[in-house]
Amino acid sequence: MIAKTPRPPYYAVIFTSLRTDVEKGSYLETAERMLELAQEQQGFLGMESAREECVGITVSYWESLDAIKIWKGHAEHLVAQEKGKSLWYTAFKTRISRVERDYEF
Amino acid sequence: MIAKTPRPPYYAVIFTSLRTDVEKGSYLETAERMLELAQEQQGFLGMESAREECVGITVSYWESLDAIKIWKGHAEHLVAQEKGKSLWYTAFKTRISRVERDYEF
Repeated sequence: MIAKTPRPPYYAVIFTSLRTDVEKGSYLETAERMLELAQEQQGFLGMESAREECVGITVSYWESLDAIKIWKGHAEHLVAQEKGKSLWYTAFKTRISRVERDYEF
Repeated sequence: MIAKTPRPPYYAVIFTSLRTDVEKGSYLETAERMLELAQEQQGFLGMESAREECVGITVSYWESLDAIKIWKGHAEHLVAQEKGKSLWYTAFKTRISRVERDYEF
């Protein structure tokens, strides 16, 4: 779905990943749990995600850089990040950006 | 693929869309042509795209807000944007953001 974000400015974390071709260590279960957990965090504004073959893009939206930092350091999220590196992704890139303008249709 | 972008700051245009369920008016052909055309624009840095069922996320990266503005107003791109509204998308949101930090694995 398209996230219902407030009027800018706010922050977007763009996470682009290349998956390994094997479904190891409950990837989907962890992804769902991370969404659930993110939604509970202070300053979380929404998330959008799409995967096509091995390329995935997940964009999460946040009120502040602090909220992003706290989420990055969340204990359960740290475990998931480690599993991401060791099991699920062959490569990823995370970009932290400030949304300055938006429009929709 | 993961776009090979330079060191921040640079700009990201996050385009999230919900597609109609019909393949009308050569969507794929137009999408490919727009990628080709974007790559020729001054200030274009890269593009990432993923579609899962009806939700699609395309992120394009640019050197400056001016480059984004010129691309938005490109004649052939304007035609594609109109077809997007009339044929391909039930909803979309475009967010223009400034990438301040990135890291990869």
